[in-house]
Formats: sequence, structure tokens, C-alpha cells
Amino acid sequence: MNNQPLHIIKVGGNIIDDEQKLQSFLNSFASFPGKKILVHGGGKLATKLAADLNIPQQMVDGRRITDTDTLRIVTMVYAGYINKNIVTILQSKGCSAIGLCGADANIIQAHKRVHPTLDYGFVGDVDNIDADRLSSLLESGLTVVMAPITHDGKGQLLNTNADTIAQEIAKAMSVHYKTTLIYCFEKAGVLMDAEDENTVIPMIDPAAFNKLKTEQKIFAGMIPKLENAFKALESGVNKVVIGNAEAWDTLISGKSGTTITLEL
Amino acid sequence: MNNQPLHIIKVGGNIIDDEQKLQSFLNSFASFPGKKILVHGGGKLATKLAADLNIPQQMVDGRRITDTDTLRIVTMVYAGYINKNIVTILQSKGCSAIGLCGADANIIQAHKRVHPTLDYGFVGDVDNIDADRLSSLLESGLTVVMAPITHDGKGQLLNTNADTIAQEIAKAMSVHYKTTLIYCFEKAGVLMDAEDENTVIPMIDPAAFNKLKTEQKIFAGMIPKLENAFKALESGVNKVVIGNAEAWDTLISGKSGTTITLEL
Repeated sequence: MNNQPLHIIKVGGNIIDDEQKLQSFLNSFASFPGKKILVHGGGKLATKLAADLNIPQQMVDGRRITDTDTLRIVTMVYAGYINKNIVTILQSKGCSAIGLCGADANIIQAHKRVHPTLDYGFVGDVDNIDADRLSSLLESGLTVVMAPITHDGKGQLLNTNADTIAQEIAKAMSVHYKTTLIYCFEKAGVLMDAEDENTVIPMIDPAAFNKLKTEQKIFAGMIPKLENAFKALESGVNKVVIGNAEAWDTLISGKSGTTITLEL
Repeated sequence: MNNQPLHIIKVGGNIIDDEQKLQSFLNSFASFPGKKILVHGGGKLATKLAADLNIPQQMVDGRRITDTDTLRIVTMVYAGYINKNIVTILQSKGCSAIGLCGADANIIQAHKRVHPTLDYGFVGDVDNIDADRLSSLLESGLTVVMAPITHDGKGQLLNTNADTIAQEIAKAMSVHYKTTLIYCFEKAGVLMDAEDENTVIPMIDPAAFNKLKTEQKIFAGMIPKLENAFKALESGVNKVVIGNAEAWDTLISGKSGTTITLEL
């Protein structure tokens, strides 16, 4: 393991859908030194385009059922519009970004999801990340901007959850770097009371997590996110941080948000 | 100058719009050995998407006037849908492709076209190609697939003619490689009689070109293409070939199409 730090940052719809917030976030992101990978989600643009084109959308547990028309839409919106806009904004701020999807350079190979009762369509679950290829792009001075589209190696593009992509990249890259995985979302961190932004839990280790679960002091929707964070840590990721991208400086320095670690 | 060969191939709508022709072309392209860059145009998909979204399109001399909505469409279609589909197909055929637009890694910087009487909107004319960056991607074993979208370095994406991009890349890459530029289009080559595919002129040098022009034996629409080809040759490109992508094997070996050279 290399001890050079690498930050993998995931941003979602709350930033992407708001032009001002996006500009402000990319300002902070561009000026943040060191090796970094940005994984972006899709936001409302794909839903809006589907509505404009009269293509009905079906969501199950927050996942988009992806038929052929919907795959075309998310490929256009995620890997085209959002990805290239982020890249050109970063370039204008002096950050040499390269925008990719998982098919590019075969960086993320996935398979079409198999589910006993539900056909998710062209939704992909990640099989492999080419960490060597990603490293060589980073080492050549580039910042990678990753769209949540993967492929199966047989010519099929697949729609893949951006949180999962960020996590899989962080795990794979831990072979080469001291990896921090940062999930930017709309809340200030993991909250004791989902309605109160002042109840951020600054640090959670497995013991604290179990206590919070047992005492039901944690918002149910956060439990899978935290379980995934612990899995990432067990796979070699150094630190997982969950917090608000608008508080970037304090988030990145660990003064805001929730830090998830194996040992306090 | 390096003597290693590099092929830069431009394919347009006649291939991209036809799923079978695209598969067959990509089969040949994938199995063709050596360093290569594929530049693709847009085809009818952008026009169709604009129609579906009720966004009126205005074409002047074959160029698309690019307002904000149209820029969004071409970014989605060219850099998203077409680019990523080509990449995943090439990956499935064992060719490790990476799909980029000009903003990625700042590979193609351009400026918004200035025209005395006509506002083309967000149309870009190429200022600079980062040949070193492209070389380093090629040398790392990747095949570059380039969408005809560039940027101005100030955060603005620009719609740019794919023929021009192919030519500018070929010129810039001639510093590093022995460069062949191949324009695939719907005709078998430069024709003496535009209606007769059997009248392909196999080889054109400047003297032959002047003779053809003087005798008006050449289709007027081909003249700017040929003038550009000669400019590319004068800037160090080794060979320019114009022909039909469906005859790939003979085209690449120089047995079909028209070869344009400075000296016969």
C-alpha cells in the first residue's frame, strides 16, 4: 500500500440540480490539492428529460428501472450532459479533469442485475474496477470525473448506482493509495434526529453504530449507508466521511460531517 | 518525428445512423492493429432528439446553429449516447477504447466562432490540440474515441465539426507519429462523376487537383474537403484517404478510395 492520499468524492442531485451550488462546490473541489476522483449521480435531469420525451419512469426503492429508452436517457444525461459540464467547469478553474464512464478504458465492469422477482432492466452491479488504469490517469496529473454508467464487457451499457461506484472505486484504489471516501449529501452528516441539522454525530465506530441501532437513535435510511461504509473500511478504505458539500472546507478537514472509522 | 504509424479515422452519420453498418465498421476498426483514433460525427440522432423535444434546428451550409438548448442536445447525443455506445462495442471486440470530448484532459481547446454577419451560437473553431496528452493515452494501450464537442477553457462547451477535429488531430499528432487521416463517407471516394461510384479517382496530388478543378471534372462539394486535405499534408500529415467505411479492408490498404498526397 502506497501512503499517498486519494480522495474519492461522491456528489448527488442536491448539488448537480442547482447551478449555483454546483459552481460553488466545483470551486472548492478544483482548489483542493492532491489526487482526487469525483463520482457524480444523476439528479432530476434524467427524470425531466424522460418526462419531456413521454417515457414513463418506474422507481423501486430509489432505483430507476432501466428499459432501453431509459438507458439511452441516462447515458445521454449522466455520461454526456452532466459529466462534460462538470469537466469543462473544472478545466476553467485550473483542474485538469477527464470525464469517463465505466466503459471507458474498461474502468468499471459490471453485470446486469439478477433479482428473483424484479427485472431492473439495464441496471448493473459492479464486478471489477481497473485500479491500475485509474492510478495511471491520476499519476499523469488528471482528476477523474466518473459518470454512473458501467458496461458488461459484451457491448451493453448499464445504469449503476453512483454511491456503489464511489465505494467500489475507493475499495479498489486502497491498494495504491491511502483512500478517503466522502459522500456529499443534503444533510450535515449522520443525524441523531433527522429533522435537526444540529444533531450531527461527529464520529461513528462499529461499537457506536451497534449502540445507535440498538437504541434506535439513528434514522433508518442511514443504516444501509453506514453498513456500506463499514464494508469499505474493512476492505482497506482509510476513512469514510458523510456530510454536506456546501461545508466543503470543514468537511474535508473533518470538522463537519460524520466520520466513520473502524477504531476511534 | 516518430515513424510509428497512427491512423485517425473519421466516421459520419451514414455509419452511425445504421446499427448494422456501425457494428460491421467497428468490427473492422477493432481488429485493425496499431495506434488509432476514431473521430465520430453526430448523424441524425441529434436532429431527431431536437424534434422530439420541439427545439427548432437551423442549419447553415451544413453547420448546426447551436443555441443553449441545441448545445445541451449535441452534448448529450455526441459525447454521451454515441460516444459511449461506440466505446462499449469496441470494448466487447477486444479494443480498449476511451471515449472523450475536447474538454476532457483539455485535449481540444477552441473558441466560439466569430463571423461578421452570422451568429453560429456555441460553435467552436479549434485553437489547440494537446498532442502530448493524446500520445500518452495511445502509448498506454488505449484507442481514443473522440466526440465532436470542444471547450473554450473558460467553462463553455462548444459544438465543433468532426471533419475539422479529425484534421486538426492528424496535424498535431504528426509531430509524434507517421499519420494517416482517413475520412469515411457515403461515397467510394472522390468521384469524377458524383452519380457514378465507378469513377473513383484513386490518387490526387496538387497538380492533378488543379487540372481537375480547371477542367471542372470534380464535384464542387468535394473541393473544400480536398483543399483541407492538402493543408493537412502541408502540416505534416503523411497521407489522407477518402472512401467508404464499408470497404474498410481495401480502404485501409489503399486499394479503394482516393488517396491524397503531395507527390505521386
